[in-house]
Amino acid sequence: MRKALFLAVILCFFVTATSVFALTKINIPKDLSAVSKECIDCHKETNVNIYQQWGYSKHFRANVGCFECHEAQKGDADAFEHEGNIISIIVSPKDCARCHEKETDEFINSHHSKAGRIMGSLDNILAEVVEGNKGMKTEGFPDGISAAAVNGCWQCHGSVVKINKDGSLDPATWPNTGMGRVNPDGTEGSCTACHQRHEFSVAQARQPENCGKCHMGPDHPQIEIFKESKHGINYYANKDRMNLESNKWVVGEDYFAAPTCATCHMSATVDMPVTHNVGLRIKWNNRPPLIKLAHETDKKWGLESAKITGDMRKDNMVKVCVACHNENFVEAFYIQYEAQLHLYNDKWAKPGSKLYKKATAVLKAVKGKEYAKFSQKIDYTWFELWHHEGRRVRHAASMQAPDYVQWHGNYDLAKNWYGEYVPEIKEVIEMGKHSGNPKANELAVDLEEMLTTIMNDENHRWSIGKEDPKARADRDKRQKEFLEKYK
Amino acid sequence: MRKALFLAVILCFFVTATSVFALTKINIPKDLSAVSKECIDCHKETNVNIYQQWGYSKHFRANVGCFECHEAQKGDADAFEHEGNIISIIVSPKDCARCHEKETDEFINSHHSKAGRIMGSLDNILAEVVEGNKGMKTEGFPDGISAAAVNGCWQCHGSVVKINKDGSLDPATWPNTGMGRVNPDGTEGSCTACHQRHEFSVAQARQPENCGKCHMGPDHPQIEIFKESKHGINYYANKDRMNLESNKWVVGEDYFAAPTCATCHMSATVDMPVTHNVGLRIKWNNRPPLIKLAHETDKKWGLESAKITGDMRKDNMVKVCVACHNENFVEAFYIQYEAQLHLYNDKWAKPGSKLYKKATAVLKAVKGKEYAKFSQKIDYTWFELWHHEGRRVRHAASMQAPDYVQWHGNYDLAKNWYGEYVPEIKEVIEMGKHSGNPKANELAVDLEEMLTTIMNDENHRWSIGKEDPKARADRDKRQKEFLEKYK
Amino acid sequence: MRKALFLAVILCFFVTATSVFALTKINIPKDLSAVSKECIDCHKETNVNIYQQWGYSKHFRANVGCFECHEAQKGDADAFEHEGNIISIIVSPKDCARCHEKETDEFINSHHSKAGRIMGSLDNILAEVVEGNKGMKTEGFPDGISAAAVNGCWQCHGSVVKINKDGSLDPATWPNTGMGRVNPDGTEGSCTACHQRHEFSVAQARQPENCGKCHMGPDHPQIEIFKESKHGINYYANKDRMNLESNKWVVGEDYFAAPTCATCHMSATVDMPVTHNVGLRIKWNNRPPLIKLAHETDKKWGLESAKITGDMRKDNMVKVCVACHNENFVEAFYIQYEAQLHLYNDKWAKPGSKLYKKATAVLKAVKGKEYAKFSQKIDYTWFELWHHEGRRVRHAASMQAPDYVQWHGNYDLAKNWYGEYVPEIKEVIEMGKHSGNPKANELAVDLEEMLTTIMNDENHRWSIGKEDPKARADRDKRQKEFLEKYK
Repeated sequence: MRKALFLAVILCFFVTATSVFALTKINIPKDLSAVSKECIDCHKETNVNIYQQWGYSKHFRANVGCFECHEAQKGDADAFEHEGNIISIIVSPKDCARCHEKETDEFINSHHSKAGRIMGSLDNILAEVVEGNKGMKTEGFPDGISAAAVNGCWQCHGSVVKINKDGSLDPATWPNTGMGRVNPDGTEGSCTACHQRHEFSVAQARQPENCGKCHMGPDHPQIEIFKESKHGINYYANKDRMNLESNKWVVGEDYFAAPTCATCHMSATVDMPVTHNVGLRIKWNNRPPLIKLAHETDKKWGLESAKITGDMRKDNMVKVCVACHNENFVEAFYIQYEAQLHLYNDKWAKPGSKLYKKATAVLKAVKGKEYAKFSQKIDYTWFELWHHEGRRVRHAASMQAPDYVQWHGNYDLAKNWYGEYVPEIKEVIEMGKHSGNPKANELAVDLEEMLTTIMNDENHRWSIGKEDPKARADRDKRQKEFLEKYK
Repeated sequence: MRKALFLAVILCFFVTATSVFALTKINIPKDLSAVSKECIDCHKETNVNIYQQWGYSKHFRANVGCFECHEAQKGDADAFEHEGNIISIIVSPKDCARCHEKETDEFINSHHSKAGRIMGSLDNILAEVVEGNKGMKTEGFPDGISAAAVNGCWQCHGSVVKINKDGSLDPATWPNTGMGRVNPDGTEGSCTACHQRHEFSVAQARQPENCGKCHMGPDHPQIEIFKESKHGINYYANKDRMNLESNKWVVGEDYFAAPTCATCHMSATVDMPVTHNVGLRIKWNNRPPLIKLAHETDKKWGLESAKITGDMRKDNMVKVCVACHNENFVEAFYIQYEAQLHLYNDKWAKPGSKLYKKATAVLKAVKGKEYAKFSQKIDYTWFELWHHEGRRVRHAASMQAPDYVQWHGNYDLAKNWYGEYVPEIKEVIEMGKHSGNPKANELAVDLEEMLTTIMNDENHRWSIGKEDPKARADRDKRQKEFLEKYK
Repeated sequence: MRKALFLAVILCFFVTATSVFALTKINIPKDLSAVSKECIDCHKETNVNIYQQWGYSKHFRANVGCFECHEAQKGDADAFEHEGNIISIIVSPKDCARCHEKETDEFINSHHSKAGRIMGSLDNILAEVVEGNKGMKTEGFPDGISAAAVNGCWQCHGSVVKINKDGSLDPATWPNTGMGRVNPDGTEGSCTACHQRHEFSVAQARQPENCGKCHMGPDHPQIEIFKESKHGINYYANKDRMNLESNKWVVGEDYFAAPTCATCHMSATVDMPVTHNVGLRIKWNNRPPLIKLAHETDKKWGLESAKITGDMRKDNMVKVCVACHNENFVEAFYIQYEAQLHLYNDKWAKPGSKLYKKATAVLKAVKGKEYAKFSQKIDYTWFELWHHEGRRVRHAASMQAPDYVQWHGNYDLAKNWYGEYVPEIKEVIEMGKHSGNPKANELAVDLEEMLTTIMNDENHRWSIGKEDPKARADRDKRQKEFLEKYK
């Protein structure tokens, strides 16, 4: 069965290879186009490095010059005439697809290319209102737009690029290389988010720093976690042996010292082809407050990949793992990892979200029209519990970085729950009870009951001196044995 | 005297060299064993990278194959039959010692190999109870174990590996490469914590990232501190010239551009051999709340190295320093460093621990059976004062990273002392006084007196407007002179 | 015009080149001096790496030995006799200038060399009093000095080096390589802050880690920001192609893959020479609470460079940018960046500093002589708002690191403003009103009015439920459209 699959893959490879070859034969020009030569004449003076970077790229050797990518058609939203030619500044996935169809197709159908949709989610309140103001005024935003969105969110998630009347790009929306940029031609996504112009170096795209531009920081510290992990340690110790420039980059054939982000999430193994849909090897979506299987998110987003279930995605990932690890090892890892997901979900996420919803109801009853989310501390406390430490602990366990699991994850969850959240919930209860508002009082009494129930459950009763006596005795016994063993 | 010592070392070196040579001659097999060849036949298909990594290792050239390390004896706790041979998954220090006796001996007698003992310390309350629950159930833990311990603490400190009835390893305890892992054969320690399978690359083990897996984060940011320091700057600028692959790796003979963690704490100098006991060049143990000489900890732990005093350890370290620095320079550095230790100890650690003990007594009197450590914010505040910022400032001064000394150390100590801890102590005083509980009231009055005394001492009286007038005048004078000089 | 400028530069180059050549011809000795040979005889035994590092340096090839740099004159404050020669430990900018006049001149006139002046600023209260004590006593500080200043501030900013009676250097002030060190000969600055002894490698000085020793951490995380940015990603992916060892290092001629800190702030472009005054390409000084043009700071400090306005500095920087980017791209970047500066300034810095000033007046009225800055939490909250997150967001926008803009900048500003600062201001108001002190009450009423005004302005009124209805409707509309588009 394994062999059959292998043959199928090989076959597949040849089919693809042949077709690419045929296309290549037809398309690679014998010489650089006259128009591109004209571009270069000027730009190698005014922007020397662009010329040099392009000279280093595979595009150079294939006679793919400036105009071959920047060519536009009259009527394109962002087309303009420049020195007698119609061009556009933005090279969108549609442009790249003229040569790189398979890669673009995969990307366009991935969660990655939809990163711009966050602007339509409830998150827009943070950058636009809470953190921002309408002080940045441009032709495209005559009433103003938040510089926090422009310099922050949009630079990873992507802007909706706007065209000014004179054909130039609105400076609130450009420069922008956000993953889910909405381009003037209507396409979603930005290839240069990973494949930096004008070298489009595959080696650069395979390095963890590339992903780290967005996958870092308190809410999704994947690059920090990778660096702490054995995977990262081995990568940085052996970068020179990673064969990162190789066109064929199959783990186990072309390199074996360590994986990068690309290795596990995208690149080829002996029996899986490379894919530009980065979600297809990830079982769990570790972003929402409550734990969630990745395909459930895809379903909600209407992506075709919704049919690839979490378990199927795990199977894909295991195919990568076994390049270096025994299958039992991998299975045991998943048991550890998923136990952490459930610990997070049961102890903090479920009770925490219930409490927050009810506390918000109390606050709304007390404050009426003056209520605003993110204007009181409890909003930030809960937000960070799930969005910051709650993600950190899940990501850290998924990639085996123990310090992130403990000191940036579980510890922070406990500290902020017992040290901040519970006292803040109690304040809301007091506020509701003393508001003189019967509705608020009623909700506060509900909230109090809810809190009491939660604090008395298995997860939290230790904190009010009610640890299960048997569990306590067991723990004390183990501790005593351990200490005696090493006296 | 210096020359005599040098000769002694040289002599020593030859003796060792000869004996190793002799052993080598006898032990290196002429060919790979038949059993190992069998292992490879399968595993190079199913886990291609293990085969490749081993191929890159020194073990390959020495005909040390799979079976030579994984061989087990019937009756070994974790032995099982696999394709006709008795093997075990875990290769313990005992296994490694069959060839690497000296290194294993040093390691086994070091503090490092005892890292697993934390599980028996009071810390087990954090991961098991405060942060965790008993949701992870395995054959080895039928009543459940905390996923926080499994994914966090144990991955650095080591698990106590449990064997299931079918001979497989309990997934709560494996995979695990924690430094102080308690192996099925009873040995403490994990060589692969640093020497990653299956390359066992000495170059990788010598790189700071290797140590950074555990020595990072808010409570012991050694890797971050190293990176900030001049040592780290020079290392990353000159990694290519570090000769990291060299078997002989004597600072000053084989490389000179920069030190790594290994250079200072383990590796050979012109007159000191390499050691796998990493504590023998460290004068101060910078982990406990109060400053402590390293050998005092070793004494408490019953380690033989307790006889090597702090001053002797410093002398060892100075031997490394003088490879690049003048002796006066090194002595002056130690004066600076130790002044920081005493500042921390006198200003925060001593009064802070006294206050915490007394405040806890008040809380216990007030709350009775409902009292639980780590259920109120003050527990976290004090814990972080010594365990987080108090360690950071000590580690940072020890390795000369000024930003960590200031903005992750002294500043955080002051901010959390005056901004959090003192107000929280005052709350406890109020709570005790208004509890209606005479015992609690009495303790609260004691606590108040203690606080008043502390706030009026040399370290803290500035904060209640009582800075020593002479000191204040001197400071103002210096400031004025300084400003005038540069008008 | 461009061509004319180019010719001028070329001319300039030849003039300089010729003069350097002439000097070189005269100055490079044919052989290493006899005195340096003597130094080496001993020190290659006692400090082997210094000898080796020097052997790797350009100084070696130019016969510039130990004595050529360490030579001193009788009567120099730190001169002492050592083996028959008069030398000093510290090699000051004055010493370096004997050969490197141009570089030293630029440095001496830069803001960088004035870093030591912080000791005379109000900041000295933090390290000396708040965080420190007078526990470190040396000959130079008989009444004691703070180890927090010695190990923290001074290691980046520089110490004022003191000489003991026996000619040795006071250990509170040495070792020290702070940028603005005040040397025994009265010069300000330390060349070895960047050019590490004894290799003085230009490649090392050009690497971002070099700057990261001081430009890191919560208050100025430039190295972290660089690492996140596209610039950093490309640098780390292409370090091998950066040609870092080249004497001539012109971006676009000698390397083109990525910029380092040096590239943008110091190094040569096709039409700008290298400079050791690092501020001349920086338009905005992003350190003070309120945004400020860089030349305004220089004016205050009495630096000659005050005549180079912010706009001229921007023009300098643009000359670097266009090596890789189109001018429109660069202009649009500046619009984005400056919009972020104004957002920070208008929403947080201006109202925040006004509130702090008034709240401090209330606290002083209430506490009288017992008032002390940094003894209450609000001091830390406001300090971090401008000094930590307020700098982070400005630095991050200036170097295009979106995660730092958002999650270490704008988000933290909002969280700490609404979650900490405003509640703390309200506490001060209550404290003043209930103090029974008429002056304090009056000031508290003023503060309350000020807060009410601020909370009702465009930036903050959303938080009391008063978001502009039109803006709200627009936002809701955009959100709805967005969501429908992707249903």
